[in-house]
Amino acid sequence: MMRAVIFDGRIRVVNRDIPVPADGEALIRVRLAGICNTDVEITRGYMDFRGILGHEFVGQVMECAQREWIGKRVVGEINLTCGICAWCLSRMSRHCPDRAVLGILGKDGAFAEYVTLPVGNLYEVPVSIPDDGAVFVEPLAAAQEILQQVRIDPDWRALIVGDGKLAILIARVLLRLGVDVSVIGKHPRKLDLSRKSGAVTFGIGQESGVGYDLVVEASGSPDGWKQAVAAVKPRGMIVLKSTYHGDILWNSAPLVINEITVVGSRCGPFEPALRLLADPAFETDDMVDAVFPMEQAEAAFERSQSPDSLKVLLRMMPTER
Amino acid sequence: MMRAVIFDGRIRVVNRDIPVPADGEALIRVRLAGICNTDVEITRGYMDFRGILGHEFVGQVMECAQREWIGKRVVGEINLTCGICAWCLSRMSRHCPDRAVLGILGKDGAFAEYVTLPVGNLYEVPVSIPDDGAVFVEPLAAAQEILQQVRIDPDWRALIVGDGKLAILIARVLLRLGVDVSVIGKHPRKLDLSRKSGAVTFGIGQESGVGYDLVVEASGSPDGWKQAVAAVKPRGMIVLKSTYHGDILWNSAPLVINEITVVGSRCGPFEPALRLLADPAFETDDMVDAVFPMEQAEAAFERSQSPDSLKVLLRMMPTER
Repeated sequence: MMRAVIFDGRIRVVNRDIPVPADGEALIRVRLAGICNTDVEITRGYMDFRGILGHEFVGQVMECAQREWIGKRVVGEINLTCGICAWCLSRMSRHCPDRAVLGILGKDGAFAEYVTLPVGNLYEVPVSIPDDGAVFVEPLAAAQEILQQVRIDPDWRALIVGDGKLAILIARVLLRLGVDVSVIGKHPRKLDLSRKSGAVTFGIGQESGVGYDLVVEASGSPDGWKQAVAAVKPRGMIVLKSTYHGDILWNSAPLVINEITVVGSRCGPFEPALRLLADPAFETDDMVDAVFPMEQAEAAFERSQSPDSLKVLLRMMPTER
Repeated sequence: MMRAVIFDGRIRVVNRDIPVPADGEALIRVRLAGICNTDVEITRGYMDFRGILGHEFVGQVMECAQREWIGKRVVGEINLTCGICAWCLSRMSRHCPDRAVLGILGKDGAFAEYVTLPVGNLYEVPVSIPDDGAVFVEPLAAAQEILQQVRIDPDWRALIVGDGKLAILIARVLLRLGVDVSVIGKHPRKLDLSRKSGAVTFGIGQESGVGYDLVVEASGSPDGWKQAVAAVKPRGMIVLKSTYHGDILWNSAPLVINEITVVGSRCGPFEPALRLLADPAFETDDMVDAVFPMEQAEAAFERSQSPDSLKVLLRMMPTER
């Protein structure tokens, strides 16, 4: 038996059997996990997911047929893919049509004492990255995914709409390129983290201006989309990170008239994210809002939905630094 | 005095003063003009335009300070721009923020005996292009605009959603690159024109399939947008040509999850379009639905809104071939 945080219409901490690794899978003891906005959206109905929540984690391999993995501290790519389709064979396995997604689609997640994942999904965490840094690998990879999709000109002016965890990581990724980064959001405490990294910040009621080459919509709110369309320059680009549960009203004319490019962007590659996390100059410590024991998952979810909260972590095992 | 087709809440043919060319403008006697879906959208409220309609035309220069233009047969770029802003100076004058647009925004259009345009907007029509070919220069340029914005891989599978005039021109432009082009629409007569050019066509109720590298939404209908999102492959591209008057309901999740790129696309460059029209292998004759005398503009608009109609032309002067 193990303890696990499930969603079955509401968030509950329950007893579950320890999962049995399938062929090619490893059994991982979870040390620390992060609550993502996607987890919160799931508890609002997104993806119709039922089961063990969670996809951001760091843990230790306990069982594995490839014995060299046993004992290693790992993070795990969240897309479980077939490995043989055209997508998998062309380094775009995150779009495998037969994929399951950890804690999101057809696969129990990592808010539990144990989780299983295919060995091919595992990445060893360098000792220089503490657990509470390693849990940022998945959202940081999602921020870096923008660079995998789009050629970013360092001479661009970029606006990030939203001041949350993903927005801060995106700001830090873009600032490392030399891009002129502005961030607009509602929460002074969160905006501070982007400002101290070198971004210009705009609070509610302030005018961020227009004519940005690149606007990243990472607010998670339909209002953010309107703000993005208004701020981007003609022939400019909007990177869309937010998935809104449900439909929004939308007018195509500004996109066509101003010939805007909109790029939907989801998960990213783990290896570059680990390289960034291993750089002491790339800070994530300041984004940890609170660490809750797993048994207090409900309170942790509540905290993570508080407007001014940052990354809320769940501790399954004592954290080592 | 001259006759002109105006929209002032409804379409009417009225007397107007012959316009007086401003500094740097030419006075053009209009020979033949085309009704575009944008004209129809304007009569439904799009852009709140009031005045002389029309932006697709061919005519003859009657007055011009640069006397070498007098007598020449010309088509005219529809964006009237400042010429001195960063957009104008970087070959993107069609995005000049101070622009007027012929028959669409702040400038009387070409459904009249006479129209004025800056000399810089004029392109002489080669003798090999008849009037009823030259009127296609503006929509053909809009089709070619896709090539100016996007690198088209000739190995792509492309789907065009919509079977109307712009869709046919886009199909023909893409087919010339060697692209595998499919067209889905509701009107057998219109689909025939794409099929005989080499496209695969799908009618209503037929399944066009999924997994297209490129989908061009040129249906002019919000349903077309949904079809485009369903047909494009992950990491694929939707080129959005349709401007819908009013808002549509829209769900961001498929764009983000499948990392789709959406490229809004509007007007294009006239010179490449004239080069295509001068090629006898590039057919437009078959797209002319009917030619009405300008006095019958109301009937012409009615005809152009009939579901199976193609390009409806207005004749101001006897057409020469």
